[in-house]
Amino acid sequence: MIVTLLTDYGRDDDFVGVCHGVIRTIHPEAQIVDITHGVRRYAVRQGALVLRNTLPYMPVGVHVAVVDPQVGTERRALALRTFDGRILVGPDNGLLSLAWERCGGVDLAVDVTRSPHRLEPVSATFHGRDIFAPVAAHLARGAELADAGDQLDDAELQTVELPEPYGEDGTLVAHTLVVDRFGNAALNVDHDDMAGTQITLGGTVEIEVGGERYLATYAQTFADVRPGELIVYEDAYRTLAVAINRGDAAATLGLRPDAEVRLRPR
Amino acid sequence: MIVTLLTDYGRDDDFVGVCHGVIRTIHPEAQIVDITHGVRRYAVRQGALVLRNTLPYMPVGVHVAVVDPQVGTERRALALRTFDGRILVGPDNGLLSLAWERCGGVDLAVDVTRSPHRLEPVSATFHGRDIFAPVAAHLARGAELADAGDQLDDAELQTVELPEPYGEDGTLVAHTLVVDRFGNAALNVDHDDMAGTQITLGGTVEIEVGGERYLATYAQTFADVRPGELIVYEDAYRTLAVAINRGDAAATLGLRPDAEVRLRPR
Amino acid sequence: MIVTLLTDYGRDDDFVGVCHGVIRTIHPEAQIVDITHGVRRYAVRQGALVLRNTLPYMPVGVHVAVVDPQVGTERRALALRTFDGRILVGPDNGLLSLAWERCGGVDLAVDVTRSPHRLEPVSATFHGRDIFAPVAAHLARGAELADAGDQLDDAELQTVELPEPYGEDGTLVAHTLVVDRFGNAALNVDHDDMAGTQITLGGTVEIEVGGERYLATYAQTFADVRPGELIVYEDAYRTLAVAINRGDAAATLGLRPDAEVRLRPR
Repeated sequence: MIVTLLTDYGRDDDFVGVCHGVIRTIHPEAQIVDITHGVRRYAVRQGALVLRNTLPYMPVGVHVAVVDPQVGTERRALALRTFDGRILVGPDNGLLSLAWERCGGVDLAVDVTRSPHRLEPVSATFHGRDIFAPVAAHLARGAELADAGDQLDDAELQTVELPEPYGEDGTLVAHTLVVDRFGNAALNVDHDDMAGTQITLGGTVEIEVGGERYLATYAQTFADVRPGELIVYEDAYRTLAVAINRGDAAATLGLRPDAEVRLRPR
Repeated sequence: MIVTLLTDYGRDDDFVGVCHGVIRTIHPEAQIVDITHGVRRYAVRQGALVLRNTLPYMPVGVHVAVVDPQVGTERRALALRTFDGRILVGPDNGLLSLAWERCGGVDLAVDVTRSPHRLEPVSATFHGRDIFAPVAAHLARGAELADAGDQLDDAELQTVELPEPYGEDGTLVAHTLVVDRFGNAALNVDHDDMAGTQITLGGTVEIEVGGERYLATYAQTFADVRPGELIVYEDAYRTLAVAINRGDAAATLGLRPDAEVRLRPR
Repeated sequence: MIVTLLTDYGRDDDFVGVCHGVIRTIHPEAQIVDITHGVRRYAVRQGALVLRNTLPYMPVGVHVAVVDPQVGTERRALALRTFDGRILVGPDNGLLSLAWERCGGVDLAVDVTRSPHRLEPVSATFHGRDIFAPVAAHLARGAELADAGDQLDDAELQTVELPEPYGEDGTLVAHTLVVDRFGNAALNVDHDDMAGTQITLGGTVEIEVGGERYLATYAQTFADVRPGELIVYEDAYRTLAVAINRGDAAATLGLRPDAEVRLRPR
């Protein structure tokens, strides 16, 4: 089975390379896909969203995620199987929760904090290397999930909450969830949430952020407007997003994660 | 066959990882080489140059390139075979054109915009995931190019133009093409263009950029001069380039892509 | 055998991708692990430390390292086998030396500057592509080390020196060796050096850098202190390090490589 990795380790240091080395030492034939290592440091909710969005494009396998501000404390280390047959491995801080919801829920969960597959001595600061990578490698090689740790009641597992958008006097009140490297900002609004609004393709949308108002076109793609112009569009994960053609909407509008974004037709 | 990827997606987001996942879902045995994902955003000509320069070092395979400012518009999606047997996949905006010229020209080209291999629904903004990666994966697995889309007349394909260097009163007038992360700036001057100049190895070259003049040594490698000194040299792709030993020539001289660079022996 | 790569090439350009292409052209079945390409430019000692620390987590194989300020000069290109059976490949500038010491010393070393495995013509500036990658690929495929170049006396090989920490009036005088992307700074103090100090887990440590004094907790992990607070801890390689929980210790304290750091119990 394939192993995928998603972390906030970045690519400048050796954290990712060491996890690859550990996996291949245990399972030389492993195929590894790096989903991303660019999650903002300690941004558990962002990591949870990216994992949820990207897993449908990954082969069924063992999916490791590490965004872990509580590393070395009493927070549990998890491995679990979803009802659609994927194995998720990571800290019990909600990082995996949006993904398991999308994948049919939790079939079996185990606490791998003291897994027989861990590397000893386990360091206090690098559980990617010492717990998550080796547990994933053994599972990808065929080890039984039930033998990887102590069974858990999945009602005990941590989850992350997402803010819900709501309507107010004809305005859709949303929040920024994730900003990509192009400055495109994804909101907590999906395809179905849009149905109830008066916002229509090709129309003009007023965006209010931090007290400032901007006009955007509700369009399909960047090149539907001139360079420098704002668009509101459904992104590749069918999430409503804000962008500037050939520009950086997040920087221009101050769209940090959790920023309130008010949208109304105009 | 191997699949290579070259994009402007960067490594901070999940774009590259998702393309890997799509390829491996279709073709689990695929070998993938990431040539680079650091092309400047929307820099089609830079992408075309890097693809042309690097393909000779890649095994013959399926070579995907995505630098795609017109994604989601009527621009075509292409797959083509060169006379030397490589398959190139990407948008029809000239990105592939320098590579196919280097590889003997186009043997067969097809429009894959509505390829049977695409992922549906095709998003308006992420054709790397929905068209280019899946088409490449099927071709790498052995699907016939002729079955991947509708045949095109290769005279219709978009190309990119490179500026030509020229001589003027004993000065070689060149332009910056590409700047790397070290600040080394490659010019539109190759090995043969140098033959006609009076610039000789070990000699001093006057470089004029933006009205400012600098003195450089025409040398073979960085360590031929002291730290902080300028060199003009033939880079690893046999292109004339400007660098500072242990420094950043592009930042120091203001060598952005397309900057005019005037060179004369001194 | 697996091939691992560690360089200062960064990920923004095509240097790494081209090395992968060269390796797979020669050895299509190669498994490649990128340990890191984020070593600071020309930081030979940092590269040597990272290679030494990470190799124990890599399968035994051919380990290429390139941090090479003298590329194209008379510095030798090396390939060598350690007594514990690893093959190291890189420039003869000390980059490999801490790793071979950790791996039992040098069993056989050869000068591969004019190796029969090199790509010709060898450029003056990109020996990763033209010498190190192809030599490594041939060795990983099974070529004999003795046939890769001319045998060397290992007493001739370059090494890097690390500063030693020392005690002075109850103060431990150390130096910063490596700073990671989180701003965590590793010192030249290992597990055993700590034994002689009065610094104890949970206690307060005074850190003096550049004449400024700071108070830190000697802790096991980041979350043992509040966000924004300083810790001194043994990192995942059992090296003493300085960090700020959810912050950037290197930026806050001015901990650049080689900075003197004075530690005393308080």
